[in-house]
Amino acid sequence: MNVELINTGNELLLGITVNTHLAYLGKRLFSLGLRISRQVTVPDSSAIRTTLEEAIPRCDLLFLTGGLGSTSDDLTRGIVAEFFNRPLLPNTEVHRKIENRFTRLGIPFRKNMLCQTMVPEGAEIFLNEYGTAPGFYLPANLQPRTPHVFVLPGPPRELKPMFEQQCLAILARLAANEKHIDQRIFSVAGIGETLIEEKIGLELSQDGRLEVGYCPRFNDVEFRLIGSPNVLEEVTPRVYQALGIHIVSQNGDSLEKVVVERLRKKKETLTTAESCTGGLLAHRITNIPGSSEVFSDGLITYSNQAKSKWLGISNTLIQSHGAVSEEIAREMAEKALSLSGTTHALSLTGIAGPAGGSPTKPVGTVFIGLASQQLPTEISGKLFLAERESFKQLATQTALDLLRRRLLST
Amino acid sequence: MNVELINTGNELLLGITVNTHLAYLGKRLFSLGLRISRQVTVPDSSAIRTTLEEAIPRCDLLFLTGGLGSTSDDLTRGIVAEFFNRPLLPNTEVHRKIENRFTRLGIPFRKNMLCQTMVPEGAEIFLNEYGTAPGFYLPANLQPRTPHVFVLPGPPRELKPMFEQQCLAILARLAANEKHIDQRIFSVAGIGETLIEEKIGLELSQDGRLEVGYCPRFNDVEFRLIGSPNVLEEVTPRVYQALGIHIVSQNGDSLEKVVVERLRKKKETLTTAESCTGGLLAHRITNIPGSSEVFSDGLITYSNQAKSKWLGISNTLIQSHGAVSEEIAREMAEKALSLSGTTHALSLTGIAGPAGGSPTKPVGTVFIGLASQQLPTEISGKLFLAERESFKQLATQTALDLLRRRLLST
Repeated sequence: MNVELINTGNELLLGITVNTHLAYLGKRLFSLGLRISRQVTVPDSSAIRTTLEEAIPRCDLLFLTGGLGSTSDDLTRGIVAEFFNRPLLPNTEVHRKIENRFTRLGIPFRKNMLCQTMVPEGAEIFLNEYGTAPGFYLPANLQPRTPHVFVLPGPPRELKPMFEQQCLAILARLAANEKHIDQRIFSVAGIGETLIEEKIGLELSQDGRLEVGYCPRFNDVEFRLIGSPNVLEEVTPRVYQALGIHIVSQNGDSLEKVVVERLRKKKETLTTAESCTGGLLAHRITNIPGSSEVFSDGLITYSNQAKSKWLGISNTLIQSHGAVSEEIAREMAEKALSLSGTTHALSLTGIAGPAGGSPTKPVGTVFIGLASQQLPTEISGKLFLAERESFKQLATQTALDLLRRRLLST
Repeated sequence: MNVELINTGNELLLGITVNTHLAYLGKRLFSLGLRISRQVTVPDSSAIRTTLEEAIPRCDLLFLTGGLGSTSDDLTRGIVAEFFNRPLLPNTEVHRKIENRFTRLGIPFRKNMLCQTMVPEGAEIFLNEYGTAPGFYLPANLQPRTPHVFVLPGPPRELKPMFEQQCLAILARLAANEKHIDQRIFSVAGIGETLIEEKIGLELSQDGRLEVGYCPRFNDVEFRLIGSPNVLEEVTPRVYQALGIHIVSQNGDSLEKVVVERLRKKKETLTTAESCTGGLLAHRITNIPGSSEVFSDGLITYSNQAKSKWLGISNTLIQSHGAVSEEIAREMAEKALSLSGTTHALSLTGIAGPAGGSPTKPVGTVFIGLASQQLPTEISGKLFLAERESFKQLATQTALDLLRRRLLST
């Protein structure tokens, strides 16, 4: 089945909002054996109609997102209804749903919300559990040779649960006869894509039975194999042999998820003492459901005084080595470990920039400490040539990988 | 000028990577009076050529991203060179740049990197300061009626600095005659888009001189006006009159940036005590350059024990009210304030889910505390019907807005 996606919204083209729908839908559809072959973003204008006209003859399955709200720039509902020649009719179930939500949240129902209760005749309605505007599904051949069309709300936190709870069952039925292809996404940490290609990628791509891809991220690479489940099964041991300890996961799981799950299995715990990353490490860990079993507390000791006050690091030590140093990273990790009584403690101290660098310690310098019960403390000094937010990502990625490797070897 | 963007990459269509290029380029181009009218994502395949052929006759300015690396799925350089009938030639400056980078990072130069040193004849080269593959610019009419073409690397942390430091100057020259339109992006917190439209949006859109847009985010709305600088200047006071204290900023600045800047101006300081948001609040604050002037430390007290140990909250109090309660939010904020000696302290305690809810305190419940020197502590209880990561965003957004309002009134 040929699948296309049209995202509507001036805010996407103006750069006010990042479009996360393609990533989300691409991943979910692949699990059904479907791949998006083209995605287009168009403004809130008649371009929606033009793009719809272009896409309709090409595809079997079409997704549209956005433009279902109640303000003047919300055009999708009307354009789709008109294209398929279906009148918009009020739906009492949708109306009741919106009223209930507003009552629960203590907001009055406003008349200009009424347009959101209108749905194209003959459409299957998706109620919105996390917002107001419903989505809908128009089956194929509603007009001669039209594809299956799914129209979904723009806000991701409304679209995602609607897709999971309401669209997925329909799609599974539609895609029942798709050829079963599978993918393995090896998250690879600590080596670059060139080396991965040399070690194993080239060989697998020349083999001809697999689609091979590389996507460099933050100090890691997503090395992607797509093909039949049998071939993937067959080559996976070769990938492990070639890349070994560098493989974080083979299902696309994030480093933080792998680390939290391994800690849970081992019934071990972790604390954090962050300077330059300002809470990002703890945030990444606590994004994982169930992290409370392994993570109880973390400290953000941004200033020198905070390092002294919360961790008891002597001011003299900070003055003699500088706050960004191997010694202070070591102290932060070891003090955090003994204060928290956890199995492991990670610390980070560095210069996120844009200011604060010096010739010997330029912006991008970071020292990462890993202290563990009954093991020597490990310190990793790195230089990340990246701007502030990427630096924070890179530094926390490296810290998590340090812990992942220790968890593998203990 | 008609501007289009083609993003290449299977990882974008498979949902492995979120495409941030549209948002970034959309924002930067608008500042030059340019708007992207269409963005397309295509796989690493001959679809790049097809899409190029479709876009070329429509546009004056075309951007392509991705596919410039050295692995087998990197096709863009070759396809563009072939389309414009330009041979790929080795470039010594690029070669030296890549070798230097590798020496600095302590990585050996590998032969399969050599393709990245090849650039189309006649192209203006953009050296890559944060990676290896160079970008390039092909001026208009290189072939009959071809647009200006900018080809940029896929990784955002390479593309962004290359765009800022090397493309922008060329684009400013090309766009010198564009009609000067401007935009005001009012970040509006605490009221929904329907109410914003009722209060001011409808009136401004009926006025006919402005393009009006609404984009709901996390507990806030980006209310967008586009038009001539004069008209924007004229209507801005009316927007402030209608929306008053709900306006966070009028230039798209984030809530955390507004809060950090206001604290800096007032020479006040902030500390944080986070439970359910696990470091996200501190992470958002420390994303702002210069935040170290106002933020010295933060605590992540995820477990009950951590609340007792770090903040000295009595276990009896936690048992009698529950950790997720108005009383504990108050204690967390007030203890953090007195321990840190800052001007303000924000606390959050809640249930991020998916597990942990109860009938009286369902998943999504959060209590936010704001304690300040010489002012009564304020507590805000909220219910956010959202999944884990959105919940964390919504909760921190509300906390920051609570502080923003206090900073306005003091």
